Amino acid sequence: METTAVVIGSGNVATHFARALQHAGAKILCIYSRTAEHAAEAGKLLGIPYTSEWEQVPENGNLYLYAVSDAALPGLLARELAPQALHVHTAGSISLDVFPASKPNHGVIYPLQTFSKDKELNFSEVPLLVEAVTPEITNKLINFAGTLSTAVYTIKSAQRQKIHLAAVFACNFVNHMYAIADEILCASDIPVGVLRPLIAETASKIKTLSPADAQTGPAVRNDKLIIDKHLTLLKQYPELHEIYNMISNSIINRKKSQDSACKN
Amino acid sequence: METTAVVIGSGNVATHFARALQHAGAKILCIYSRTAEHAAEAGKLLGIPYTSEWEQVPENGNLYLYAVSDAALPGLLARELAPQALHVHTAGSISLDVFPASKPNHGVIYPLQTFSKDKELNFSEVPLLVEAVTPEITNKLINFAGTLSTAVYTIKSAQRQKIHLAAVFACNFVNHMYAIADEILCASDIPVGVLRPLIAETASKIKTLSPADAQTGPAVRNDKLIIDKHLTLLKQYPELHEIYNMISNSIINRKKSQDSACKN
Repeated sequence: METTAVVIGSGNVATHFARALQHAGAKILCIYSRTAEHAAEAGKLLGIPYTSEWEQVPENGNLYLYAVSDAALPGLLARELAPQALHVHTAGSISLDVFPASKPNHGVIYPLQTFSKDKELNFSEVPLLVEAVTPEITNKLINFAGTLSTAVYTIKSAQRQKIHLAAVFACNFVNHMYAIADEILCASDIPVGVLRPLIAETASKIKTLSPADAQTGPAVRNDKLIIDKHLTLLKQYPELHEIYNMISNSIINRKKSQDSACKN
Repeated sequence: METTAVVIGSGNVATHFARALQHAGAKILCIYSRTAEHAAEAGKLLGIPYTSEWEQVPENGNLYLYAVSDAALPGLLARELAPQALHVHTAGSISLDVFPASKPNHGVIYPLQTFSKDKELNFSEVPLLVEAVTPEITNKLINFAGTLSTAVYTIKSAQRQKIHLAAVFACNFVNHMYAIADEILCASDIPVGVLRPLIAETASKIKTLSPADAQTGPAVRNDKLIIDKHLTLLKQYPELHEIYNMISNSIINRKKSQDSACKN
């Protein structure tokens, strides 16, 4: 059966998902955003109908895909819309039981990736974490997700929430460390590009080493001399000073507990 | 003139440097470590003479390369050794003026990369940050560094120290975020491999986007609902709870200052 999809939301996840749907040959009937400007922008970008009026969201889709903020999702799901269709949300931290009784056919496809509008990526490599209300719908969603990506996993809500939490560390917090490095270099008129090989190698190392084995630098050696020098350099940046201190201590603590674990 | 090198130190930086020297056709006369076992291990790995006796360190080298801990470096430099040769340290945070008067020909080559013994890398792409006591020696070191890598920069001590600090954020702290993600997933029996595409994309994004523009996730959206859920999940891990809270606040603060900067 042909997928006739309606995409609710127009942010980074919604637009990347919509593009993947198009690529997989699905027909997108409409993209909805409550903000007219965002709806128009996404619709024009993707070349599909768009609306910011809930009443105009088509009722004849067989798949409704929600990629909106966690705060907005329950309110949107509570609205009347295509009760027999399959309704799927894409949120990492929202449980399957967010769906109301009026939408009995429902599930989750959580794409474990960082999406920015201005950065294309190969959606076929994005891990898709699938969960659904019945084994039948789970199978249906697994098959559907398999048309979008080669990396499909079945994951329950509680596990998905932990994966989302881990992803915040591995992606958002990592990116914030890049932002801080950027800031330190910019303040000294040093081109940020000088760090690129280091950033690439750091990400590459953990393909073959565990993060614990891959760790280098002053904290894991408990090199107080360098740590103190760096803290002195950060004296006029209290927030960075505190972050440096806290993460260094965490590295030192973890190293100690590993070392003692090895001895037991 | 052929480079006849002596490598002082046998850790990750020393062995990767020694291999690069060999690759560039330099002759390594000896590798020294104060620990006999480490000296032997590195010497055998590289197929070169080794010693843990200072008196046996050859005097006839023309290049002495120090890759030791910051704490050990001044003591080693203070020892009598080949006064006319070129002495070069590799430390990010140690100034050029660490060299004593007894070693008038000296400089620094700081390799801006993370080295692990069990992970090979292409040394020819490692940024080498060069500084030396005179313009002549600087040129000599630039030429020499150019035989090891295609990415050679001349950088003064004060700048190098800031680059080292930025590198701790962009590499060691990033890797610690991977370690924490790892820990969260392991505790839930979730295979860590599921995060690989996310980690790769996060590092890849900042080749074309600034870290500020690349940021996604709950903190940059100031999505208190998810942040609170994550903090609840981390309740029994006080250290991770604090790290999550602090970095999220830092992302939120930085976003605010950018937003207000845009308005001015």
